[in-house]
Amino acid sequence: MAKKEFTVTPYEAEGKIDYNKLIDEFGVERLNDAVLQRIKKHTKELHLFLRRKVFFAHRDINWLLDQYEKGNKFFLYTGRAPSGPVHIGHLLPWIFCKWLQDKFGAEMWFQFPDEEKFLFKQDLTFEDTNKWMNENMLDVIALGFDPKKTRFIIDTKHANIMYKEACKVAKKITFSTIKASFGFTDSNNIGSIFYTSMQAVPAFLPSVLKGKNIPCLIPLGIDQDIHFRISRDVMPKLGYYKPAIIHNVFLPPLTGIGGKMAASGANESSIWTTDSEKDVEKKIKKYAFSGGRKMFFEPDDKKLQRIHNDYKSGKMLTSELKEVLIEKINSFLKEHQKKREKAKSQVDKFVNWN
Amino acid sequence: MAKKEFTVTPYEAEGKIDYNKLIDEFGVERLNDAVLQRIKKHTKELHLFLRRKVFFAHRDINWLLDQYEKGNKFFLYTGRAPSGPVHIGHLLPWIFCKWLQDKFGAEMWFQFPDEEKFLFKQDLTFEDTNKWMNENMLDVIALGFDPKKTRFIIDTKHANIMYKEACKVAKKITFSTIKASFGFTDSNNIGSIFYTSMQAVPAFLPSVLKGKNIPCLIPLGIDQDIHFRISRDVMPKLGYYKPAIIHNVFLPPLTGIGGKMAASGANESSIWTTDSEKDVEKKIKKYAFSGGRKMFFEPDDKKLQRIHNDYKSGKMLTSELKEVLIEKINSFLKEHQKKREKAKSQVDKFVNWN
Repeated sequence: MAKKEFTVTPYEAEGKIDYNKLIDEFGVERLNDAVLQRIKKHTKELHLFLRRKVFFAHRDINWLLDQYEKGNKFFLYTGRAPSGPVHIGHLLPWIFCKWLQDKFGAEMWFQFPDEEKFLFKQDLTFEDTNKWMNENMLDVIALGFDPKKTRFIIDTKHANIMYKEACKVAKKITFSTIKASFGFTDSNNIGSIFYTSMQAVPAFLPSVLKGKNIPCLIPLGIDQDIHFRISRDVMPKLGYYKPAIIHNVFLPPLTGIGGKMAASGANESSIWTTDSEKDVEKKIKKYAFSGGRKMFFEPDDKKLQRIHNDYKSGKMLTSELKEVLIEKINSFLKEHQKKREKAKSQVDKFVNWN
Repeated sequence: MAKKEFTVTPYEAEGKIDYNKLIDEFGVERLNDAVLQRIKKHTKELHLFLRRKVFFAHRDINWLLDQYEKGNKFFLYTGRAPSGPVHIGHLLPWIFCKWLQDKFGAEMWFQFPDEEKFLFKQDLTFEDTNKWMNENMLDVIALGFDPKKTRFIIDTKHANIMYKEACKVAKKITFSTIKASFGFTDSNNIGSIFYTSMQAVPAFLPSVLKGKNIPCLIPLGIDQDIHFRISRDVMPKLGYYKPAIIHNVFLPPLTGIGGKMAASGANESSIWTTDSEKDVEKKIKKYAFSGGRKMFFEPDDKKLQRIHNDYKSGKMLTSELKEVLIEKINSFLKEHQKKREKAKSQVDKFVNWN
């Protein structure tokens, strides 16, 4: 077998990712203009992550909008497996979720699968995952989710409502399927083998708890798609809708090389949400090799185009571009860190809902 | 490979079981006189299930008694996977547990792994397991366990305290081990593969909840031993004692042929705890081919010996022996069914302890 140019699974993302190839390989659909216009019909404007193709693919969005237009509102489901601090790349899909919540009046179920990384990383303890979960929650809350419409679901804490449902999913998935899908072997631990059933649960848990079938939209990184390629086959067998999915690209690390901006270890090229102004300045100056990718901090398309043109023509120097970027990121982080502080008193509302 | 004369796993028990061979094969120790006398030092008398070798093997009982003699009391752990009614064979280890609870003042953790049979039986639903669990609990309570010292632990209901601990166990067990131990294949569902980690949890859960290491004694059918052959290796790695185990034989079905008295299906040769006097009479007359094995309903060793002798010599006819057995079983069941009714108002105390 020829060596693949890139690999994308929940447990591995390597090489320069070709998103066009991914669309074919994963069997997802491109988020084309027709779909974008259909979304816009309801949202009036298109979020810059839609305009700029940060979200680039989907499954069943048209079905979801059919349901919505019939008055059958959907809920949102996304999540974060805690094992380290949050960097600005992690915030992207969550910022988009918050926008979707506002535009569609949708409930948000935000999962913290605190056992996932524990099961996959030899040295990680539940003390570690718990510490990072508490930190990560602040970043999510800081983005402004409506506490009345947002529920945090923690796998170990809420297992009394999740485990039974996970067993229903698990009963319909063989190890053969897991092996083929995730590349696992007989040496995988039995917790890691079971895990995908827990990740499936929030996609239909509101339907279980409310006793009626509710459509679900999952905004998530394309690397997580495989979990739902499996569980989307299972859910109709349990009497629930297949969740719709909208996929985002990875935010490349500041050095501009492929792959994810890694959360693991002390990757100096990542910008953490708790970084100081000085940290950001140092990192951008040292690592950011091109400002062209840093499109997330300039909401104005025209301004962004002008910066792009000026930089291309040589009118704007790399050092000047970096200054703009430093200023943008620091002003975002200043605000975020303020809200993050305030979030500390709100955690309880998001967690203790059952 | 030569066809084995018998097979004993949690998911299969076939053929005429040779308990001597099982002792070698499973690597357990015989419950010999020295051990029995050591137990008797504390209990003053020996339960008839010990005298008559219904419990015939063990792991680490001497260590457990060392601990007990040092003032380090143990708790008991056994369980019942609900998928059908309880027959009198099921009651044996539980009756013995109740005796141990009384004699050693031990806490009893009684697990109802309501997901187990759900995961292993294609057509079984959680509605089924829930229905049978509610029935089975009445049989357990009817045996007289101390409600202040007995906790029912239901896997799906108590998963919020169990699942995290199960993940710690699961992280240390590979699918290779499960394959080799249970004879599973890649076609097993991923819930059944994970399940043994849930069965391990009650053996150290009291230690987790009380924040100190507490010895555990598990009375259980020899067919369940394999679960703990695996998890006994794991528990010390998590900082807990290996549980001690005491193993019972199967109560053969009334027809006297090998294997377990099956709980599944409408096995006419089993006597259920809810059987009427007429049911019992009919079944004994139709199926019980020898009273020699029905030793569990005559506590007096001498009387039993006399019955045995009279039957051997022809002084007592099969029909007379059957009459004795019918009377004994019906008098036991009459009392049991009365207590079973009363148990209905006590379930809550056993279940809602956390």
